[in-house]
Amino acid sequence: MTKWIYTFGDGSAEGAAEMHELLGGKGANLAEMAGLGLPVPPGFTITTEVCTHFTANDDAYPDGLEVDVDAAMAHIEGIMGAKFGDVENPLLVSVRSGARASMPGMMDTVLNLGLNLETVEGLAKRSDDARFAYDSYRRFIQMYSDVVMGVGHHLFEDILEDIKEDKGYALDTDMTADDWKAVTENYLAMVEDERGKPFPQDPKEQLWGAIGAVFGSWMNNRAITYRRLHNIPADWGTAVNVQAMVFGNMGDDCATGVCFTRNPSTGENQFYGEFLINAQGEDVVAGIRTPQPLTEAEKTEQGSDLPSMETEMPVLYCDLVAVREKLETHYRDMQDMEFTVQKSKLWMLQTRNGKRTAKASLKIACDMVAEGLLTQEEAILLVDAQQLDQLLHPTLDPDAERDIIGRGLPSSPGAASGKIVFSADDAEAWVAKGEKVILVRTETSPEDINGMHVSEGILTTRGGMTSHAAVVARGMGKPCVSGAGDLRVDYDNKQLMAMGEILDEGATVTVDGSSGEVMRGEVATIQPELTGDFGQLMEWVDEARVLGIRANAETPVDAATARKFGAEGIGLSRTEHMFFDPARIVHMRQMILATDEPARREALDKLLPYQREDFLQLFRIMAGLPVTIRLLDPPLNEFLPHTLEEMEEVAKAAGADVSAVRARKLELDEANPMLGHRGCRLGITYPEIYEMQGRAIFEAAAAIVKGGETVEPEIMIPLIVDKPEFDMLKDVVDRVAKEVEAAEGVTLTYLVGTMIELPRACLKADTIAETAEFFSFGTNDLTQTTYGFSRDDAAPFLEIYRSKGVMPKDPFMTIDTEGVGELVKIGCERGRGVRPDIKLGICGEHGGDPASVRFCHDIGLSYVSCSPYRVPIARLAAAQAAIKTDPHKQPENR
Amino acid sequence: MTKWIYTFGDGSAEGAAEMHELLGGKGANLAEMAGLGLPVPPGFTITTEVCTHFTANDDAYPDGLEVDVDAAMAHIEGIMGAKFGDVENPLLVSVRSGARASMPGMMDTVLNLGLNLETVEGLAKRSDDARFAYDSYRRFIQMYSDVVMGVGHHLFEDILEDIKEDKGYALDTDMTADDWKAVTENYLAMVEDERGKPFPQDPKEQLWGAIGAVFGSWMNNRAITYRRLHNIPADWGTAVNVQAMVFGNMGDDCATGVCFTRNPSTGENQFYGEFLINAQGEDVVAGIRTPQPLTEAEKTEQGSDLPSMETEMPVLYCDLVAVREKLETHYRDMQDMEFTVQKSKLWMLQTRNGKRTAKASLKIACDMVAEGLLTQEEAILLVDAQQLDQLLHPTLDPDAERDIIGRGLPSSPGAASGKIVFSADDAEAWVAKGEKVILVRTETSPEDINGMHVSEGILTTRGGMTSHAAVVARGMGKPCVSGAGDLRVDYDNKQLMAMGEILDEGATVTVDGSSGEVMRGEVATIQPELTGDFGQLMEWVDEARVLGIRANAETPVDAATARKFGAEGIGLSRTEHMFFDPARIVHMRQMILATDEPARREALDKLLPYQREDFLQLFRIMAGLPVTIRLLDPPLNEFLPHTLEEMEEVAKAAGADVSAVRARKLELDEANPMLGHRGCRLGITYPEIYEMQGRAIFEAAAAIVKGGETVEPEIMIPLIVDKPEFDMLKDVVDRVAKEVEAAEGVTLTYLVGTMIELPRACLKADTIAETAEFFSFGTNDLTQTTYGFSRDDAAPFLEIYRSKGVMPKDPFMTIDTEGVGELVKIGCERGRGVRPDIKLGICGEHGGDPASVRFCHDIGLSYVSCSPYRVPIARLAAAQAAIKTDPHKQPENR
Repeated sequence: MTKWIYTFGDGSAEGAAEMHELLGGKGANLAEMAGLGLPVPPGFTITTEVCTHFTANDDAYPDGLEVDVDAAMAHIEGIMGAKFGDVENPLLVSVRSGARASMPGMMDTVLNLGLNLETVEGLAKRSDDARFAYDSYRRFIQMYSDVVMGVGHHLFEDILEDIKEDKGYALDTDMTADDWKAVTENYLAMVEDERGKPFPQDPKEQLWGAIGAVFGSWMNNRAITYRRLHNIPADWGTAVNVQAMVFGNMGDDCATGVCFTRNPSTGENQFYGEFLINAQGEDVVAGIRTPQPLTEAEKTEQGSDLPSMETEMPVLYCDLVAVREKLETHYRDMQDMEFTVQKSKLWMLQTRNGKRTAKASLKIACDMVAEGLLTQEEAILLVDAQQLDQLLHPTLDPDAERDIIGRGLPSSPGAASGKIVFSADDAEAWVAKGEKVILVRTETSPEDINGMHVSEGILTTRGGMTSHAAVVARGMGKPCVSGAGDLRVDYDNKQLMAMGEILDEGATVTVDGSSGEVMRGEVATIQPELTGDFGQLMEWVDEARVLGIRANAETPVDAATARKFGAEGIGLSRTEHMFFDPARIVHMRQMILATDEPARREALDKLLPYQREDFLQLFRIMAGLPVTIRLLDPPLNEFLPHTLEEMEEVAKAAGADVSAVRARKLELDEANPMLGHRGCRLGITYPEIYEMQGRAIFEAAAAIVKGGETVEPEIMIPLIVDKPEFDMLKDVVDRVAKEVEAAEGVTLTYLVGTMIELPRACLKADTIAETAEFFSFGTNDLTQTTYGFSRDDAAPFLEIYRSKGVMPKDPFMTIDTEGVGELVKIGCERGRGVRPDIKLGICGEHGGDPASVRFCHDIGLSYVSCSPYRVPIARLAAAQAAIKTDPHKQPENR
Repeated sequence: MTKWIYTFGDGSAEGAAEMHELLGGKGANLAEMAGLGLPVPPGFTITTEVCTHFTANDDAYPDGLEVDVDAAMAHIEGIMGAKFGDVENPLLVSVRSGARASMPGMMDTVLNLGLNLETVEGLAKRSDDARFAYDSYRRFIQMYSDVVMGVGHHLFEDILEDIKEDKGYALDTDMTADDWKAVTENYLAMVEDERGKPFPQDPKEQLWGAIGAVFGSWMNNRAITYRRLHNIPADWGTAVNVQAMVFGNMGDDCATGVCFTRNPSTGENQFYGEFLINAQGEDVVAGIRTPQPLTEAEKTEQGSDLPSMETEMPVLYCDLVAVREKLETHYRDMQDMEFTVQKSKLWMLQTRNGKRTAKASLKIACDMVAEGLLTQEEAILLVDAQQLDQLLHPTLDPDAERDIIGRGLPSSPGAASGKIVFSADDAEAWVAKGEKVILVRTETSPEDINGMHVSEGILTTRGGMTSHAAVVARGMGKPCVSGAGDLRVDYDNKQLMAMGEILDEGATVTVDGSSGEVMRGEVATIQPELTGDFGQLMEWVDEARVLGIRANAETPVDAATARKFGAEGIGLSRTEHMFFDPARIVHMRQMILATDEPARREALDKLLPYQREDFLQLFRIMAGLPVTIRLLDPPLNEFLPHTLEEMEEVAKAAGADVSAVRARKLELDEANPMLGHRGCRLGITYPEIYEMQGRAIFEAAAAIVKGGETVEPEIMIPLIVDKPEFDMLKDVVDRVAKEVEAAEGVTLTYLVGTMIELPRACLKADTIAETAEFFSFGTNDLTQTTYGFSRDDAAPFLEIYRSKGVMPKDPFMTIDTEGVGELVKIGCERGRGVRPDIKLGICGEHGGDPASVRFCHDIGLSYVSCSPYRVPIARLAAAQAAIKTDPHKQPENR
């Protein structure tokens, strides 16, 4: 016969954590704690299978369920020494839903169930607190009427307000026992009036009412919509949890508190928490009464004058310390626990892995290995890779005051202060005068690179997490807040409008790229410390991981940062970023304005020495490691100026007419530049550009080789859709390589491959791999085209999608494994099918996102490449992926 | 033992047409003709397998090949009664390459091989024409030296020029026999000088030199590049064809000519052609001598005073008539033949299916069925679907003079003349005054629709074959030339700059959308005639095809046109086109400028009656047929004005401030609108828009149903990437349907489906099909995102791709079966996997392209939808696809 009910309490349980499909998340966790022998208020779980039966059979229960529920209630009564519906010593229970995954839209909780006009009196007597009893009763009536009987809670609030007004009370705490009693009477009358039948007095009727409401709520519209949006099958069902109520507010032998098994701020192995005598759980967090410290050490540390639990309730404190040890040993992680003391008995209400700072996380992980509690691998899994970012950038002093004037997206972590300027040129000019600046733009473009480089931080009023500003700032490790939609830039007057206020150029602001906040004035920051724990964990991480980690970098500073953070090469060097320096942009523009190939070559010849020097520096910094260089990618228009004034300058410098500059700009103007004349399409149109870049690479490589060092350039041709494109450009590169080899008398080792960043390239990967020696998946562009989402424009509607629950995750942040991921997999499979040893990497923004790194590990890529500042995160995420998927490394399922 | 050589001639052949893999295209065709018993100059083919052997074995031939070649030469000598290298009666041969597919970059042809200092004298004697003999010899020396020995042809031209200068000759015809002899001597001396060895005198050495050159040219760089670009495997190899030379210029008993088995202009069953006595093939086409008519009928018809072949060479004419009958019966198609008469003997040099006008094509197909030569199915296959387009639009009078001032892409067929105007508003104003206009724009946008409607034709200077102008013009059946890059529009001065000339507003031009030409002034046109043959063929077509054919239409005019051309419903009605009418755009803009939902609803309420009326008209015109309506798709910015003046008007009309209009426009501005806030993303953001459209559709449908008619609206939600998006909007539509049903007291039949137009939608088609009731593949957008090609911007680089051989076909014209096609197939398979009876269609521009229609048939779509004017083409292409793939319908392989 099917078992419909699983009981727990009194140090044992019929269920356990791994039975969450049958018992739901909450039921499984309660069972686990009880099974450990912890003092959990007894209760039982009605399984999800009952829900399925209920739904399939017109809201009817399986035969025999009522008998089972009676038995389970008797089990609770036995443990609690109280009786459900008993006038003298009434047992009260809570009824809660509990699906496999927490699911808004369903009935949540009814507390204090079992109270009626008689039992409330019994509760008053036993607690010796009539006010407590009637307060509990009115709460029960309101909750039950709302969620089970569908009586709107404003009707209850109206009644309460009326009484408080009558009495002239301001606060609920002014209410006496008689006042609450009057409230309950009015509530009962109102509910009967509204529903045409009395509020149930029979506790058993109340219980079945609540159980039915939970199961019924599984099929309500909100729940159905939620499930549809989140792909949760309707046949999963929800469980129902019925559990004895315990009270921490029944007198001075009662208390309630929260505690951590270790210090969540520092990670020190020190019991830590706070509690309140004669109080309910809400009171600890509500902040009306100041909580007391848990331990004497804490009391000293905080300079508190309140007595600690350690001294005031020494026996119970010892009980709690025992629980602390048991839970940490069992869960092998720092725990965040809630407890209640009722009449000098300790009850554990909840335990879960505790939230902690990044610093604490590292310390706990390292300490637990030293204590022999965890293996290195387990310690690696304990640290949240995403959170590591906190440690690598300056952060705002948590104690400093903040005058927030706007909010945007937290696009590049870290905090910085400076004077606002509104153009890249101004940024350079102000910095030259010794000022620290924050560059403020509606959005940035490649020509702003130099200005971004000298700024402390970047603020834009448009653009998403993967807008130009965000991507470049992350690459530079500079704080960036992007898409701050409530701020407005007035370039003409050099002003920033913020919530009705105006900030002129030169006003000081602080941007927090970790929270997205923009603040007036300078806010103190704390510099990152890469402590010993960080170094220790990173050593273990590198032993564990399989995936290589490279960085996206093109400047010597970025490359050096990347190497410092442990990058094993460069996975993406965007050569276009090298053309914006004032000394170079002139020749670049000359090249673009040239009307024939000889004129283009003349301009390119002038760029060659710069490019060669760029690569020479990169090769030196990355000595012995692979360096992937992407040939020119963006549309040429990005290099031309916007204003007439600038055009005149350009015309002068390039020896052209200003009308020619304007005409060329107009000619290059595109409706959708992202899908326009860029990438290899430029190389096909003007092979001499790629030829110059190839020559610069090979001449730099030749210089390195002549110096006795090794170098492995990997030349990457962007935006390929088919083999003929690739072959034509590979021919150009190979020819130049031969020419340089002949001229320099050296033999060069290099690869020519492509960026796979369009759906068609994934589908044609088999033919492309016939000649391409490596693939690097450009998942930024691939996400754009697979979804048809422009990353410069998607922020507004992605926010709407998120808020309406249509698309909970931003596919530019974490790779979409179903769509984009399938294309990447197809690309890998087809590429390997033709060239089994093909080097496969990823160089989109996803390379620094832990969930995406996991995906890259799973599909067997050779490496991921990410912003220099995300290299440690990627290393950790790669190690976690390796451990989670390697049965030899995986910790036992305890 | 492998057979390396296949001979032909004297009424028989060892090879045949189907052996083209072994014999190459040319060899197989020569064998086929000879096998029919036709008088083909004898010869032999050395197979492609010899080429493979040659390439694989360091340019060595298989053992025994020399013996086989000798035998084959003897075979030719026997038939021709001449001997290779014989001084008295020398046999001359041609040597030609012949791969499976014609392949530029390889050695092509050497004629007159076998001539040397002795045989040239023999030829002079036998032909009694020393001038002819030495002219032939010098041609041979030059050709052979160029293609076999690599001596540049300019050296030969220099020698010839020198001699002509010495003699004071202007033309080659001034040269005497002795002059040519002197030329040959100088040639031979120069070649020896250049190559350090004499030009071969031994005919056998000449022959092997030429054979080796053909096989060697298979692996030259140009051929390798060509093969790589066209995916031709290197192991295919080329064949070599050696064939006896025949001469039509050996005296008055010689002649040469070309002829068609039927009239290629009209299709009439009438022998047709022209010939010249004592001439070479080149002379007929060169235009120096006027060719004579073939038949007496022709002579009369053309009013020629030259004698016909029928009277002048009656016996040979009879021979030719016999050949005509044999060939037409054999190939069962109109043939284009070349013949030469040498010394009163007829030689057939070539036959191929003849090119013909669309009108002729229809007549020939219908006549051949009537004559019992073809079945209906075979006749259907005989007509080029693409060519049918000629019949459906006005065409330029071929006799009219043309003053071409520019060229662009032939974007929408037909020709039209009018006065140029530079804005849609001006177009409307001029037409209101009774003028005919051509609308000239750099590019068009949806707000130009009304102006396009009233214009005779459209000319743009930017944009490709699938730019807005091109797509809309094709939909309207109006001529359009797009992307005319050598023209320039100056809006400020209302001028069109054309090759240095300036045309002011009001100047008359003619555009030919079938050729892409733009002409000054009015050029006479010929109106289309849908003759009886057209109707006849279309009847057969509809019997044969499986695929349904619908049209893309939203105006009553387009819908009526579509129905007239045989559309079986509407596959795409773009509702946004309905909002640009001046009476409506005001409310549309009001809606866009609204700052909250009530204000948006107020504006939408005003649009509702217009939309309802639109649908009512469509439903009436398409009575009984399905109508697919796509809900609002383009970004809202497209509906806002560009100039300050217009913005002021809009502000006034919408009761808003002009700064608010400007701010909203700025807010809606996107970097890549194609990938921006459009399609279902608008529906998710402003569900009230789709709600209004749904209401308009259902209220119109209700009116139809109440009138006792049936209607089947198919509501299409655009730009879906995942199921939750679709479901949220389907809910809106279903809810509105219920409300209208309740209010109107009717039951409505409708489907809700989606446009599959993004790669991710194809991949997620399984989950989307759980709720979507039909898919329509939007292959325009799918091509854009699969390739990362913006169709508004791709024209310039696609032209470069085409010219460099990187991408021979424009994927916006013919569906890319490998990339886009694979995604469509994936979408179909996954959709059908979940919903086996799902309706699958295509509504991109590809729906009217015959090759794409074939693909749609092959993957089993339910229907294709195309511009109204392409409906007949799609019907024919669908029939051809059905016949070609159905073994029961397919003609035998004869």
